[in-house]
Amino acid sequence: MVHRVAVIGAGPSGLTSIKACLDEGLEPICFESSDDMGGLWKFKEVSEPNRASIYRSLTINISKEMMCYSDFPIPADYPNYMHHSKILIYFRMYAEHFKLLQHIRFQTSVKSVRQRPDFSRTGQWEVVTENKDGQEERHVFDAVICCSGHYTYPNLPLKDFPGIETFEGKYFHSWDYKGPEEMYGKRVVVVGIGNSGGDIAVEGSRVTEQMYVSTRSGAWVIRQVSDNGLPVDMKYNTRFVHILFQLLPINFFNWFGEKKINAMYDHTMYALKPKHRLFSQIPVINDDLPLKILTGSVVVKPNVKEIRGSTVVFDDGSFVEKVDTIVFATGYNYDFPYLPSNTLYKSGHRAGLYKHVFPPNMEHPTLAVVGFIHALGAIMPQAEIQARWVTRVFKGLKKLPSNEAMKKAVDNDTKDIEKSFIVSKLTPLQVDFVSYMDDIAGEIGVRPSLPWLFFTDYPLYKRVLWGPVTSYQYRLMGPGKWKGARKSIFTQFDRMYQPLKNRQVKEIEASITGRLFKLSLTVMAGGAAVYYIHVRNPATIPTLLSNLRPQTA
Amino acid sequence: MVHRVAVIGAGPSGLTSIKACLDEGLEPICFESSDDMGGLWKFKEVSEPNRASIYRSLTINISKEMMCYSDFPIPADYPNYMHHSKILIYFRMYAEHFKLLQHIRFQTSVKSVRQRPDFSRTGQWEVVTENKDGQEERHVFDAVICCSGHYTYPNLPLKDFPGIETFEGKYFHSWDYKGPEEMYGKRVVVVGIGNSGGDIAVEGSRVTEQMYVSTRSGAWVIRQVSDNGLPVDMKYNTRFVHILFQLLPINFFNWFGEKKINAMYDHTMYALKPKHRLFSQIPVINDDLPLKILTGSVVVKPNVKEIRGSTVVFDDGSFVEKVDTIVFATGYNYDFPYLPSNTLYKSGHRAGLYKHVFPPNMEHPTLAVVGFIHALGAIMPQAEIQARWVTRVFKGLKKLPSNEAMKKAVDNDTKDIEKSFIVSKLTPLQVDFVSYMDDIAGEIGVRPSLPWLFFTDYPLYKRVLWGPVTSYQYRLMGPGKWKGARKSIFTQFDRMYQPLKNRQVKEIEASITGRLFKLSLTVMAGGAAVYYIHVRNPATIPTLLSNLRPQTA
Repeated sequence: MVHRVAVIGAGPSGLTSIKACLDEGLEPICFESSDDMGGLWKFKEVSEPNRASIYRSLTINISKEMMCYSDFPIPADYPNYMHHSKILIYFRMYAEHFKLLQHIRFQTSVKSVRQRPDFSRTGQWEVVTENKDGQEERHVFDAVICCSGHYTYPNLPLKDFPGIETFEGKYFHSWDYKGPEEMYGKRVVVVGIGNSGGDIAVEGSRVTEQMYVSTRSGAWVIRQVSDNGLPVDMKYNTRFVHILFQLLPINFFNWFGEKKINAMYDHTMYALKPKHRLFSQIPVINDDLPLKILTGSVVVKPNVKEIRGSTVVFDDGSFVEKVDTIVFATGYNYDFPYLPSNTLYKSGHRAGLYKHVFPPNMEHPTLAVVGFIHALGAIMPQAEIQARWVTRVFKGLKKLPSNEAMKKAVDNDTKDIEKSFIVSKLTPLQVDFVSYMDDIAGEIGVRPSLPWLFFTDYPLYKRVLWGPVTSYQYRLMGPGKWKGARKSIFTQFDRMYQPLKNRQVKEIEASITGRLFKLSLTVMAGGAAVYYIHVRNPATIPTLLSNLRPQTA
Repeated sequence: MVHRVAVIGAGPSGLTSIKACLDEGLEPICFESSDDMGGLWKFKEVSEPNRASIYRSLTINISKEMMCYSDFPIPADYPNYMHHSKILIYFRMYAEHFKLLQHIRFQTSVKSVRQRPDFSRTGQWEVVTENKDGQEERHVFDAVICCSGHYTYPNLPLKDFPGIETFEGKYFHSWDYKGPEEMYGKRVVVVGIGNSGGDIAVEGSRVTEQMYVSTRSGAWVIRQVSDNGLPVDMKYNTRFVHILFQLLPINFFNWFGEKKINAMYDHTMYALKPKHRLFSQIPVINDDLPLKILTGSVVVKPNVKEIRGSTVVFDDGSFVEKVDTIVFATGYNYDFPYLPSNTLYKSGHRAGLYKHVFPPNMEHPTLAVVGFIHALGAIMPQAEIQARWVTRVFKGLKKLPSNEAMKKAVDNDTKDIEKSFIVSKLTPLQVDFVSYMDDIAGEIGVRPSLPWLFFTDYPLYKRVLWGPVTSYQYRLMGPGKWKGARKSIFTQFDRMYQPLKNRQVKEIEASITGRLFKLSLTVMAGGAAVYYIHVRNPATIPTLLSNLRPQTA
């Protein structure tokens, strides 16, 4: 019987894991190597080894309603896309509200996690920690949740850049980037056009003599400010869109999405167009890049072929001379150095984890990884729902399948994901946000039932169907049900509007045509939802009646 | 007979005025008070009194094809929106190519311009200059062109801000703004949301603790990166759109344009919505503002009511405390201190200038103002076409109407402009770009004739109709015809694409449907153009035959 749980890391995943433990009556002890909570989101002026690192100006690219924990909405007056300093404040409020702080041991790193000799019988772990004075301590835990993150080990593949040893300027990984201060008047090449590369290119270009960004495969780049100015995730990460994705072929969405993105700015013309289709990789989010390209302050270049002194040569034979700085925004490797090396196996490029959480090769399911995932959505709600599942498994309230079945599921997932995404060494963690949330919610028994809502709470049904898939949806029913969830869903757009209301302007009323159109679509979507659940997925929820009831665990 | 012409100022307007003089065989002498050409576009680390001033990061918001002089395209590899440093290089190339430099006397300010005692007979002017050593010199000129600009005298209406004398922080006019360096960690209020206010708010917000922007009347804000990523002016400043504007009621465009802008981001939700309609004022151009508002780094506030110590109170009673800095982006006044005070009278808020150029109260038309105008288009082509007209008037090749007729025309213009625009003390110079260019081109006889092109050069007709109204269109026919003009029009989009082509991407082909649709519209537009010219404006171009010929002066 699990009672004492070690939580490794007090970042976004660790915090919600502590809370999930407390909610299930477990006794968590969280070990945090630094002196503060927040993990990635705790800004430090100088990057610290084996820790995630962010830059001074970083603002999250997920909107506040889509990033918050499911039972703790972000204050209404907070901006929609929060600066890291505000995110940290939110974490502090969360920790204080749920009394998490007393369960965290700061400045205590985990050196090793090993199965106890009697693991077969007890499922217990020996955890060795080291405090700031270098003193080691041994602990016994019934279970362990690893929340040490995945932006901690910079990937710096220098061997792919022949001649880098001749480079006369300065080079560093984006992990070391803090701000553009040292780029004034310089000529800079950023390698890689992921979210970090794009951000650094744009920010640096404000002060550089010239900024180049080199990309091997290009990227689809979307804006946070979406149609009508809504946060892009609140606009498109809806259950309705999710249902459409199940019903229609992916190439329709590729075609439609690429058309829409190119209507903003033609990715061919802007030299960004990748070989892959839009939904084969999680797109880059960057609102400022197109103007920077059009003003010439950022010049998009192909892959770097070689480096000669201060000259960077690209695959097409073109070159840039007098380069002062190269920033490698080449992503991260992942590692859990404290775990036994045989714990995590590889399934393709992915970690062999059942539903991205449980190693399927344990005699007891007392080890879990939380927050080790990447979707077009924030870590917080995903880590939270994982932690809710994990703690219920620890408690024995949910059983996992047999190891064989789990391994098979991992392999199938790997195949499935490789069908949808281009999975590489650097992108091993991709999932579809809503599918994944729903999947884990299904494990816990908290997936919202659309048909049930349709008949019992039509106003809520409408919001759950049309609105963004905010995490409150997973607190409406089942274990962990929160009475504030319904209201939070009804007020989610109010909280979105609130920080913008600083100057009174006459509101515009919605047109009647628009309303009628939406009403008819609402009813059709109800039908589609029923169709989807009953015809496409008959196995998961076999009968109409059981569907009409909320799920129970 | 005019021969010697004084050109006051060697900015964009002065340079093209020198060139126009040379083209007409006049002898220009340009007096430039600073030590370099470029006027506004010559960046200085510290603003200098009575001179325009720009900030370090300034990039022009008109695209290169729309801003260039009509017979001197900007190099193909230059970016579409150029940094001020590149614009200065372009001016240097222009000056070198047309050998303008030898006609400029640097570090020589004009102290006064007065009619000579024999003005009635000669039309001559006495110009007093002062060189850097303080030595005065008197010159006699047959004519004078004033190109001293209109961003030189900051408007700082402190009396509208009660309590400003109690303000404990620092305040200054946007004219003094050079960069955000002194705003690190500060709380800043920018007053005014014009182009300067918007730029400073956005740039400053990257380093401030909090940036507020206060606006009395709000603004429509457009993006430079327009549909499909085209520069907004190349997309919408087309002759076709211009013809539509003549044919359809303005409220249709207001409705359509506001709908399109709100589809980008709802100006009501973003607290930007002004009381005026879209086309009643030249909109603000700012691509970065919406995301800054959504991230909360820029907070939009209403008009400032008063200031109390370090607290700024707004009209709605809300207030911001601990303000460190107030930036007044409150526009500019205009003045020509060297002219006799009775030269320029006021017509409403506007200067009493015939077609924004000639004071209509002179015995001889030997004084002109060039570049004293504001449209949704660059000064350069407008100043250029004005200068071409002015020099032809000086030469006697074009006659102006009687003073009475000109004064009446000024008054009518004032009324007309007040119908289209909200004209205030701070926005006295607004015109519609294409209408104005066409109007002055008509004076010179270089307005392109669509029907003539339709029958004689259909490929060119298509480009002139559908394409952006680049200034090359005014070099196709008539005096000053340039043989490179046709080719420049055919290659204008190549030059637009060129700087983006730094990474090869497979091009996308246009769809057949799209082409057919465009073909049918092209033919219809030809009809509309004929209709417009013959039915709506029968007086200007009376017969079909004369319309089919290019205009001659």
